[in-house]
Amino acid sequence: MRDYLDGPHKAARDVVRAGLAANAELFEFAVRQPRDEYRETVLEMLQTITAQGHPARGFPKEYGGEGDLGGYIAGFETLAFGDLSLMVKAGVQFGLFAGAILHLGTERHHEAYLADAIGGRLLGCFAMTETGHGSNVQALGTTATYDAATGEFVINTPSAAARKDYIGNAARHGRMAAVFAQLVVGGETHGVHCLLVPIRDEDGTALPGVTLSDCGPKLGLNGVDNGRIVFDNVRVPRAALLDRYAQVDADGNYHSEIENPDRRFFTMLGTLVQGRVSVGGAAITASKVALEIAVRYAAQRRQFGAPGSNEETLLLDYRMHQRRLLPLLARTYALHFAQGELVDEFVRVFGDGSSEHDRRALEAQAAGTKALGTWHATETIQMCREACGGAGYLAENRLATLKADTDVFTTFEGDNTVLLQLVAKGLLTDYRESFGKLDPLGTARFIAAQAVEIAVEKAALRPLIDRLRDVVPNRNDPSDPDAGLRDDAYHSGLLRFREQHMLSGVARRLKAGIDAGDEAFDVFNRCQDHVIAAGRAHVDRVVLEAFQAAVQGAPEEIQEVLKDVYDLHALSTIEAERAWYLEHGRLSPARSKAITALVNELCGVVRPVAVELVEAFGVPGAAVEVPMVVPSQHE
Amino acid sequence: MRDYLDGPHKAARDVVRAGLAANAELFEFAVRQPRDEYRETVLEMLQTITAQGHPARGFPKEYGGEGDLGGYIAGFETLAFGDLSLMVKAGVQFGLFAGAILHLGTERHHEAYLADAIGGRLLGCFAMTETGHGSNVQALGTTATYDAATGEFVINTPSAAARKDYIGNAARHGRMAAVFAQLVVGGETHGVHCLLVPIRDEDGTALPGVTLSDCGPKLGLNGVDNGRIVFDNVRVPRAALLDRYAQVDADGNYHSEIENPDRRFFTMLGTLVQGRVSVGGAAITASKVALEIAVRYAAQRRQFGAPGSNEETLLLDYRMHQRRLLPLLARTYALHFAQGELVDEFVRVFGDGSSEHDRRALEAQAAGTKALGTWHATETIQMCREACGGAGYLAENRLATLKADTDVFTTFEGDNTVLLQLVAKGLLTDYRESFGKLDPLGTARFIAAQAVEIAVEKAALRPLIDRLRDVVPNRNDPSDPDAGLRDDAYHSGLLRFREQHMLSGVARRLKAGIDAGDEAFDVFNRCQDHVIAAGRAHVDRVVLEAFQAAVQGAPEEIQEVLKDVYDLHALSTIEAERAWYLEHGRLSPARSKAITALVNELCGVVRPVAVELVEAFGVPGAAVEVPMVVPSQHE
Repeated sequence: MRDYLDGPHKAARDVVRAGLAANAELFEFAVRQPRDEYRETVLEMLQTITAQGHPARGFPKEYGGEGDLGGYIAGFETLAFGDLSLMVKAGVQFGLFAGAILHLGTERHHEAYLADAIGGRLLGCFAMTETGHGSNVQALGTTATYDAATGEFVINTPSAAARKDYIGNAARHGRMAAVFAQLVVGGETHGVHCLLVPIRDEDGTALPGVTLSDCGPKLGLNGVDNGRIVFDNVRVPRAALLDRYAQVDADGNYHSEIENPDRRFFTMLGTLVQGRVSVGGAAITASKVALEIAVRYAAQRRQFGAPGSNEETLLLDYRMHQRRLLPLLARTYALHFAQGELVDEFVRVFGDGSSEHDRRALEAQAAGTKALGTWHATETIQMCREACGGAGYLAENRLATLKADTDVFTTFEGDNTVLLQLVAKGLLTDYRESFGKLDPLGTARFIAAQAVEIAVEKAALRPLIDRLRDVVPNRNDPSDPDAGLRDDAYHSGLLRFREQHMLSGVARRLKAGIDAGDEAFDVFNRCQDHVIAAGRAHVDRVVLEAFQAAVQGAPEEIQEVLKDVYDLHALSTIEAERAWYLEHGRLSPARSKAITALVNELCGVVRPVAVELVEAFGVPGAAVEVPMVVPSQHE
Repeated sequence: MRDYLDGPHKAARDVVRAGLAANAELFEFAVRQPRDEYRETVLEMLQTITAQGHPARGFPKEYGGEGDLGGYIAGFETLAFGDLSLMVKAGVQFGLFAGAILHLGTERHHEAYLADAIGGRLLGCFAMTETGHGSNVQALGTTATYDAATGEFVINTPSAAARKDYIGNAARHGRMAAVFAQLVVGGETHGVHCLLVPIRDEDGTALPGVTLSDCGPKLGLNGVDNGRIVFDNVRVPRAALLDRYAQVDADGNYHSEIENPDRRFFTMLGTLVQGRVSVGGAAITASKVALEIAVRYAAQRRQFGAPGSNEETLLLDYRMHQRRLLPLLARTYALHFAQGELVDEFVRVFGDGSSEHDRRALEAQAAGTKALGTWHATETIQMCREACGGAGYLAENRLATLKADTDVFTTFEGDNTVLLQLVAKGLLTDYRESFGKLDPLGTARFIAAQAVEIAVEKAALRPLIDRLRDVVPNRNDPSDPDAGLRDDAYHSGLLRFREQHMLSGVARRLKAGIDAGDEAFDVFNRCQDHVIAAGRAHVDRVVLEAFQAAVQGAPEEIQEVLKDVYDLHALSTIEAERAWYLEHGRLSPARSKAITALVNELCGVVRPVAVELVEAFGVPGAAVEVPMVVPSQHE
């Protein structure tokens, strides 16, 4: 099972695993070291993994890399078995800072900086978010004004709200920042662009005009030195502009191949999708660690039990305990396979000159997987903590650190609620609008105008209903409410029906509101919860079908157990939304109850292999060898 | 509104508020101080509130107290606006340690120790939980064996699993421990009893035979010195036994007025119900702090918005943001009033010589409110953190600390899933079995035997169904799915129906299983999720009706707004369980959708008063004046 889960990038994963396994004290730093010391330790660990070649794997060969994007992402995911501050700092340095140079810069930037950035010799920041703007990046306040007289850009923070905030590497270690700012050339604003701005000298002192400060302690990730940057008319040469998508010549003429400013902005942002892919993967990885700890504990911890029996009962033999942990275990498998599909698609899209449509679709897939993966981590780690009681609250047992460190994953690289709106919008517009722009007016009008093309409920849903009938001909026969409940086609039929019904429902509501002459913002806002639920329904379906494909493609010896886990995932997903299916006539009350009963039954089926299932994640021993789990009692 | 929320114990609350308001640096310690220093600071703060008379309020006048139990609990709840390590340490010292002496001891213990314990001069531990046993306290391993030759008890830790664990005050400050141990007299074991055992001398050195260690860093509450205690045949005089419910004479004769050992044990435990009452209250208080911070932030933070508009839109004007925060705000109001009812009942039961049935019912009410209140805190603080994005992750904005500190509330003073089982069991047996004992065999058999008495579904539910019909005569008229949706009687009718249906369903399943000859443990375990859901359904109904009573009793000028908040709570509670109502024919699909639409509408109704509603909690300014909420922009 573990080989199958590791997939095509097993080698890259094993390199990182070996590094973690050799480093048991890694898991002490977050808890034992004072913050300043911990930050220095994380920096040292960053240099160590750099020396081991981790980051280089993902970069072009001409700058010292190996050009293996898939292996790089898989390695990054694996890094999340270890200290998460290290993982995040590596993400800032290699994924974001070096990634911005690679994707937004041109050859001269690559030549000048890439090898040093990849080699950890030039530490950098990704200075996008501001105090006043996180989600709405297009409205950033920092300016980069071209001064044709000197051939320089002037970087400035015009207001307190335009201060760069939460920037990793800024409080302490970063020497240069990739700064996102409104580009002003000849008095005209061309929207947000990225420039490389030195912020510290070799000694670590802030450069003139740059004010650096510390965000202070955080709930977790205290090994990352998040800070704030304020620019007071800092001058950088014209070459500081990362000019792959837009150039400014010496005379101050702005030029971009992409004329539409929205499209240009979102094209630039789109190249940074790797961050979302990586965070989603890291969240799934962290869930695996928590589940291995909690499942192992439940498989050896006894409490209460049948009177008269010599032994108390194992926690994992209680129905409620199974209910709390095993559907989350199944969903972790589902997300693992969905993430694998996402990485494959990411490698494909970045590998060849794929179409813009493919790129937008990839961005949506990454956004959706990131949202579900990170919310899953929050929910799973919380449940694991509670399932381990007081022991789960002690730092020595790691769940506390996992919980604190991963909590912000639902926020960074895009707030999850915003991301699910992007997913829904992409589906509604077939990625034809500037993707990533959350413009209610434009979206609502566009959809209203396209209403003829959009799936109108009855026409689009009829084939899905017919398909469900084909799978379960006797759906309404109360004598057999279980018929077809373990049929893949039935599951995807239900999830597809829900997705299509919700999307067409949103489209109809938007059109009706616009047609009635209501304000576009109000129309969109009235449906916002519906839009987000539709986005989620889509991602649920994509994740389900990724798991179906994984079961079908699995080696025969593990196919049966994987199908059990899949069924548990599929049915608990449907169970969680059964109110909707009941409201929309897709489940009868008897069938809805039968699904709940079957979820319980499947928990019992999966229980005997639960420990094997968490072992198959291949979490390095040091990450899960915690005091509350007695090693000698491992099955 | 604030006066109404403060209720009868306003004076006690205001004393504590004044102490917190004067102490703004209080909120820095948890974040800025190293652990050892923080623990000393919390000890100093404990001495300060002791000097201010906080703990004395709840104790008898003859030992320096004021005998105002209700005011004491209200003050303790208010303390949770401040540093939660201080609140927990106060709970350990006064509620648990001094409480054990008061309730389990007799006059000589009161004379010898109570004034010093209340005065903070004798710091103590409540040494119940062991590494191997938390929920199942009856199975503790520590022994207290009477040695008639010397007239002493010998306290011993016979195995690693019997080590006392997670004990507050044990790692550093406690000089004496109230130790729960199996009492062995003349070779016979009489079950768990409590004894006072000195553990440290005046200098803080562990006494001979006592091994003390530190639980190390925790996710939160690091100002509390939780530790471990191992006893190696430590001798204490016979008078060390807290002998209110059982005595051992010098010759080694054991005597108790309560002959049944289970009943004796649960009677002793029952006197300690104050801990659960207090933790539930503290959790609700912590939710108020988080909500005030998040609602204020959402009422001033702008992001995105209608294109062409000069200003971006306030977060709190987004449908999804309202959906995330306002039902939780409404539920906080509901729990506040339910907690008020619980405290009134607690004062009544402990004030007069109430019946054993009343005491058992109070314990169930405390267990249920604690479970819902603490899960509510976990969910609410998590949602508030996410709703404040990256700013919510910074310690300076307090949500991080609140989250870390409150997380263990769902575990300590009784794991929530265990508590909800107790609630259901009490209802099923009408508190006639030894309350608190989770004995599947006994419970299942008892219920099977009593089946004639137990509400048989049809008979018991018919009046409820009729009542629902009376409220909403046209429930099945699709032309008016909104009829009666804001009617109190309709809400409580639905919740009562659910509670009764689930309880009778559990009873039937248990009886059927036993009648079929299945193992009692298996029968009970198969229904465990059903049992817990039934317990929760009961508490949901109690909370709802407490809110109804509070609206009815409110001064006229706030009644209307309180009714809006109540409706939001009632309908979002029903919405969350609408799958169940659809499955059981109590909601039609059209009506179910109408409820969702009305919840959205009510969010819009509550939104304009949301800031006033959080202000009415009376959170001291210092607790919510965080950098991300700009004071000048407070409405």
